[in-house]
Amino acid sequence: MAEAAIRQRVADGVEAVRARDIDAVMALYASNIVSFDIGPPLRYRGADHKRRAWQEVFAAYAGPIVYEVHALNVTTHGELAFVHSLNHVSGTLASGQISDFWLRWTACFRRIDGVWLVVHDHVSVPADLEHGQAVLNLRP
Amino acid sequence: MAEAAIRQRVADGVEAVRARDIDAVMALYASNIVSFDIGPPLRYRGADHKRRAWQEVFAAYAGPIVYEVHALNVTTHGELAFVHSLNHVSGTLASGQISDFWLRWTACFRRIDGVWLVVHDHVSVPADLEHGQAVLNLRP
Repeated sequence: MAEAAIRQRVADGVEAVRARDIDAVMALYASNIVSFDIGPPLRYRGADHKRRAWQEVFAAYAGPIVYEVHALNVTTHGELAFVHSLNHVSGTLASGQISDFWLRWTACFRRIDGVWLVVHDHVSVPADLEHGQAVLNLRP
Repeated sequence: MAEAAIRQRVADGVEAVRARDIDAVMALYASNIVSFDIGPPLRYRGADHKRRAWQEVFAAYAGPIVYEVHALNVTTHGELAFVHSLNHVSGTLASGQISDFWLRWTACFRRIDGVWLVVHDHVSVPADLEHGQAVLNLRP
């Protein structure tokens, strides 16, 4: 039941991203979230920063944003849960360039006043440390 | 008590990395771990792959490996836990070059037969998506 609730939360979040509905996106996050996000900085705290990060994503794309969650794995016990998935992100950037890549998403949830909220997330692409490159051409 | 046990597990893991003791490092992980590791691929499964990944790290450094876990945050409830931290990694590579960077580490634990094991981890540096770069010069 907890797993079904969390899967629904994730599905609602994906729908909100596609709809560019920032308030609906933000409904997923705890106010004191600690985020290791796909871009700098290393770490930030708080829903205000997360909101700005999503607003920058929305601004970066000229048209529709494809955002798909694949291979979603959910583990729950009592008031805690964690999920991980491989997410496909694509669309046309404001520059006109087409962007298409996969990222890894890990989210840690707590049930707070009956609502599952993301208290920590980690979003990334792999790095080629030797060449200092972000590896953006991988497919699952 | 669970938090103290997990902090000890992490401290033991760090000690094992510094000692290049692969079996002690591997004691941290569940056999069926799903890893989003710092380098490609996007995702892999199983302790065998994790062992090879650590052996490659050990081979990459010519001398001692500095591996420090900072800002370790631990959340536990019953049989589940998740932790996140900013880890400082430095040393002299086999090529003679000095490597020094910080990474983000998230680990999700389950208590299996009384032992806390990492069933999922996510290790990364931020990406500069616009320029395709791994961002390796950030400090907390």
